[in-house]
Amino acid sequence: MELPRIIINLKAYVYGKRALEIAKAAEKVYKEAGILIALAPQYTDIRLLAENTEIPIFAQHIDPIKPGAHTGWILPEAVKEAGAVGTLLNHSERQMKIEEIEEAVKRAKELGLITIVCANDPEVAKAVSVFDPDGIAVEPPELIGTGISVSKAKPEIVKNSVETVKSCNPKVKVYVGAGISTGEDVKKALELGAYGVLLASAVIKAKDPYKKILELANGVLKR
Amino acid sequence: MELPRIIINLKAYVYGKRALEIAKAAEKVYKEAGILIALAPQYTDIRLLAENTEIPIFAQHIDPIKPGAHTGWILPEAVKEAGAVGTLLNHSERQMKIEEIEEAVKRAKELGLITIVCANDPEVAKAVSVFDPDGIAVEPPELIGTGISVSKAKPEIVKNSVETVKSCNPKVKVYVGAGISTGEDVKKALELGAYGVLLASAVIKAKDPYKKILELANGVLKR
Amino acid sequence: MELPRIIINLKAYVYGKRALEIAKAAEKVYKEAGILIALAPQYTDIRLLAENTEIPIFAQHIDPIKPGAHTGWILPEAVKEAGAVGTLLNHSERQMKIEEIEEAVKRAKELGLITIVCANDPEVAKAVSVFDPDGIAVEPPELIGTGISVSKAKPEIVKNSVETVKSCNPKVKVYVGAGISTGEDVKKALELGAYGVLLASAVIKAKDPYKKILELANGVLKR
Amino acid sequence: MELPRIIINLKAYVYGKRALEIAKAAEKVYKEAGILIALAPQYTDIRLLAENTEIPIFAQHIDPIKPGAHTGWILPEAVKEAGAVGTLLNHSERQMKIEEIEEAVKRAKELGLITIVCANDPEVAKAVSVFDPDGIAVEPPELIGTGISVSKAKPEIVKNSVETVKSCNPKVKVYVGAGISTGEDVKKALELGAYGVLLASAVIKAKDPYKKILELANGVLKR
Repeated sequence: MELPRIIINLKAYVYGKRALEIAKAAEKVYKEAGILIALAPQYTDIRLLAENTEIPIFAQHIDPIKPGAHTGWILPEAVKEAGAVGTLLNHSERQMKIEEIEEAVKRAKELGLITIVCANDPEVAKAVSVFDPDGIAVEPPELIGTGISVSKAKPEIVKNSVETVKSCNPKVKVYVGAGISTGEDVKKALELGAYGVLLASAVIKAKDPYKKILELANGVLKR
Repeated sequence: MELPRIIINLKAYVYGKRALEIAKAAEKVYKEAGILIALAPQYTDIRLLAENTEIPIFAQHIDPIKPGAHTGWILPEAVKEAGAVGTLLNHSERQMKIEEIEEAVKRAKELGLITIVCANDPEVAKAVSVFDPDGIAVEPPELIGTGISVSKAKPEIVKNSVETVKSCNPKVKVYVGAGISTGEDVKKALELGAYGVLLASAVIKAKDPYKKILELANGVLKR
Repeated sequence: MELPRIIINLKAYVYGKRALEIAKAAEKVYKEAGILIALAPQYTDIRLLAENTEIPIFAQHIDPIKPGAHTGWILPEAVKEAGAVGTLLNHSERQMKIEEIEEAVKRAKELGLITIVCANDPEVAKAVSVFDPDGIAVEPPELIGTGISVSKAKPEIVKNSVETVKSCNPKVKVYVGAGISTGEDVKKALELGAYGVLLASAVIKAKDPYKKILELANGVLKR
Repeated sequence: MELPRIIINLKAYVYGKRALEIAKAAEKVYKEAGILIALAPQYTDIRLLAENTEIPIFAQHIDPIKPGAHTGWILPEAVKEAGAVGTLLNHSERQMKIEEIEEAVKRAKELGLITIVCANDPEVAKAVSVFDPDGIAVEPPELIGTGISVSKAKPEIVKNSVETVKSCNPKVKVYVGAGISTGEDVKKALELGAYGVLLASAVIKAKDPYKKILELANGVLKR
């Protein structure tokens, strides 16, 4: 399955109708510009977005469990059945024990779910590449939500991440995130070797999500 | 809002179509026998079950957060918008810090969500009654999933829980759980002073969920 | 055993020689002013301070475990054997699940260790009083480390905490903390009904810990 | 600093006087057989063992923190000051988030503490080798405490772990653990390429710890 170039993480900011509006905006950009854009909504919105749009829907996290007595946990099978095609893992707001990451990637593979594992720096990115996820998203936590783009403020982190991950596991796609807010930020990230970007605030706070997503997608095209 | 007499916790056992079948069976019993039965499915199934049945749907857990940057967490607003009318909290398989329980109950109240806080013994039940949830479900962990009913094997725990909770907060409804598998177990629990029961395995493992749920509902009627 | 009026929590600020100096200063004040002062140092310093001073030494936390295969956990028996006479529990920097608090208090009682359970507000204080600890320390987290004393800035929290806890479990001593930094703050806390105070920064940052501890002890005497 | 060939993890099994007896037995073997043996006791016993024996003492865990407001946490500086020369990290009974492992290794290096990071399988071992600890201890959790030695029951895990780690970071020493209980088990582990062993039960349950440790040390010599 093709990996998206842009992953919009809705975090716990928006849900329901508003989440669907953003998904519809992303779908429109996808159809017009041909850039694959994924959305990671609240678990409760996965089915809603998957049934009503044609873009890939990701879970924000899955637990490394099999069906059983796990009240309140996120079952990978349930996420898949609801229509998700992949999942984020180890986001800095939802960090995981190392053996949980390994097991969650395994469980996702058994079910054909794409995995994008988050990492706070190039070393962690290299370490998790051992588990052979589909993608790794490097996000310096100090820039998340700031609007100061990692690709402009810390280009060396983008370059290092790409090189380090590739040296250990060349198949893994490298995403970058933190502060990505303009088409220019996206363009720069891809020029530095990233395959795609992971972002939240820029789209969530945009008055016109369609316009913002289109701008970001154009950043992919212009490179 | 009326509290259900029977809460079926689907845990991470079933999801999607199978979860909907069980919900439909519960709805049929509700319409025939007039006993209110709630279901607590995976988060991803809340909307599916809420839109397609008339029985109350509960989340298995919510996180004590407000809308914001909380990737992978369970936002109470999202759970509510998806159609849940309430939530379990502090299940023995998803235990919470004491201040998280307090905050989660507050957040649920702000949104009009029913709260059923789980407790492993009468003392914890009394302690959490201070936070004024709608219900407290006492489940001795050593009996969960065994088929040995708390109401038969440890009737004094049911009685103590009811008395202890009522002494501290008379408004709170007391549920019991762990090993409840027959109509007789339900009847006995209510005779001992419980308002309702919380169960999982008996329904999940039943060949005919409708028949099993009907039997359990009859346990409420016979008392 | 008599409970201390002042508990100095060294947190992870100081250790070894510096911790011993503060303990010696507290011991001197105790001998001169007759006010019992306890110290809660790093685990690794419990034995050092217990063997070299006559003041009561507390652990900052214990885990709710029995001797066994628990690498890296804090065994209550080990803490006791090293010379601690008590322990803090559920500090806002080391929060515990509700059932862990219950179990840790039980384990401490089996070993004759004093328990002081921390709470962020009067409701949590009331809830944990159900577990019958020796003391409860109410600390509004927003004031911890600020130097703005809870007894001056939020006197109603001190009063409410004392009343609420006493209404549920009259034997439990109520401590208050957060921002306590002068003898005046201590005096005020005790006037409002607190039995004692829990503090850290004021002593840790003091140029002359002896002088600061003496001032705090005089706050107890003056009331 | 030379790394020990045998690390005895006292877990939460023994403490105080009994811990010191085992440390004395290990010291005697060290002096007689010349095999360096380390002990990882409860935090509260680090100073006691470090001051009264000449063998290296390890913490069972450290938290990835700097001096500050961290009540109840394990400060690396305090562990060092108490006499520890190193620490275990990420033991299967005390698992860590991946970024905590990275940070804890960094903090230990700043202080000159040896780090032995535990891993449940060769992939996790490879992943953590990226953080450049001094050693990695591979322990299949299903064999811990069983007396069925990993070196006999799963020799391929020992071999794979050594090869995998060396391929990524040749400087790192590989330890194996789980079920190691005889000199023969030790000998076999080293023949398979391990640098040393990590064990607990065999020594803790031994009637004569000196005799058991001598037997284990002879396993190192015989290879």
